[in-house]
Amino acid sequence: MASLSGRHHPKDGTSNAMKKIEINKDLKGKNQEYAATNRELFLKHGVKVVNIMSSPGSGKTALLEKTAAHFQDKFKLAVLVGDISTNRDAERLKLAAAGIQSEQIVTENYGSACHLDARMIAEALPRLALEKTDLLIIENVGNLVCPAGLYLGEDKRVVLLSVPEGDDKVKKYPVIFREADLLLITKIDLIAACDFAPQKVEAEAREIKGGIEVLRLSAKSGEGLAEWYQWVDRLVSR
Amino acid sequence: MASLSGRHHPKDGTSNAMKKIEINKDLKGKNQEYAATNRELFLKHGVKVVNIMSSPGSGKTALLEKTAAHFQDKFKLAVLVGDISTNRDAERLKLAAAGIQSEQIVTENYGSACHLDARMIAEALPRLALEKTDLLIIENVGNLVCPAGLYLGEDKRVVLLSVPEGDDKVKKYPVIFREADLLLITKIDLIAACDFAPQKVEAEAREIKGGIEVLRLSAKSGEGLAEWYQWVDRLVSR
Repeated sequence: MASLSGRHHPKDGTSNAMKKIEINKDLKGKNQEYAATNRELFLKHGVKVVNIMSSPGSGKTALLEKTAAHFQDKFKLAVLVGDISTNRDAERLKLAAAGIQSEQIVTENYGSACHLDARMIAEALPRLALEKTDLLIIENVGNLVCPAGLYLGEDKRVVLLSVPEGDDKVKKYPVIFREADLLLITKIDLIAACDFAPQKVEAEAREIKGGIEVLRLSAKSGEGLAEWYQWVDRLVSR
Repeated sequence: MASLSGRHHPKDGTSNAMKKIEINKDLKGKNQEYAATNRELFLKHGVKVVNIMSSPGSGKTALLEKTAAHFQDKFKLAVLVGDISTNRDAERLKLAAAGIQSEQIVTENYGSACHLDARMIAEALPRLALEKTDLLIIENVGNLVCPAGLYLGEDKRVVLLSVPEGDDKVKKYPVIFREADLLLITKIDLIAACDFAPQKVEAEAREIKGGIEVLRLSAKSGEGLAEWYQWVDRLVSR
């Protein structure tokens, strides 16, 4: 009796919040399915994958321009760039290095989503020649909150925090740092003009995520880029 | 018959996406209800309200520190500060000006939400003495995407874009700029160290939102603050 009435007359107490949690669970489950399929494809083709996340304007694209140019004769790089609107970043990266595969994911086509999810990656992958790719870098939508927690099938997650954003961000946005394998403190060339204590950021990041690696660099001045290239090289050669 | 079977046996074709849209509509409707109640309270007490939005680290709190100090003898200011975690910003603002009412909304208590919504504001308002408030500034969670589109009951929306974030952000994150009444280009003191064309940003903002006001300023050097104070003054004196 209980089960019958339960099936035909959902309790009035079913709140929107409860329904929302259910739907979110469904969506998260779907995301995991897409991510698992992506992962299989990456393994099949021997592609290493990095998911790069940060606020807007922390220097993701500038760093990728340098990275693409640095590695262009060494291995084959592909980039998927997420933005709400415009193809600007994918076009910038095509100019940065000969032979790079650079494709944009415009989330305007997905309800102006504030992050990339595994389905968007799955639907973009046919635009890339994975069999001719050693490293795929996914540049997420600029957002220090929402990209966290959505696994895309990647090997490593990198979070950028730029010096002008301030040294209080790790504790204020802990979720994304907790998931990162590597924290890049970017725009280190601006440190004299900003109040920013890198050792404080490093300590707070390690408090939140033991074992996180931290590098300081500037795509503009070139400081610290060698260590970043070594990190990438180790991942690809693994 | 159709209605009976419809009630008892929802069509199998009801997808998660459709259910999600329904739930989102419900939530948006709920938000509008809370926002309308907030609005009534603000009108009743003659409080002007500004919703300030930007990426993390664009200088919202630094600007509010200056603003609070500037107006502390002129009118009564209250601030609600949204962050995922920590009370740091509300505490910073208490130090900035004697007598300021400064309260934190920690969205960890709301599923680590990436934005403020009208319900969070409604639940925080009892912590403020609205009858002793001329201007309420709501500092949203640092996020250039998700706070857009959620009306809190405010009079005006202000978006900050800091010079180090880059001059390509208006076209890449159009939604939030389309809703802004005022765009503040912040950290203008860093312009010599960054590639940033303010006139390009202004032109793109006006293309997206005709009639948007744009000011350039630096909370650090003080440049442009007078025009911002005039804007605030006009709003409060209206």
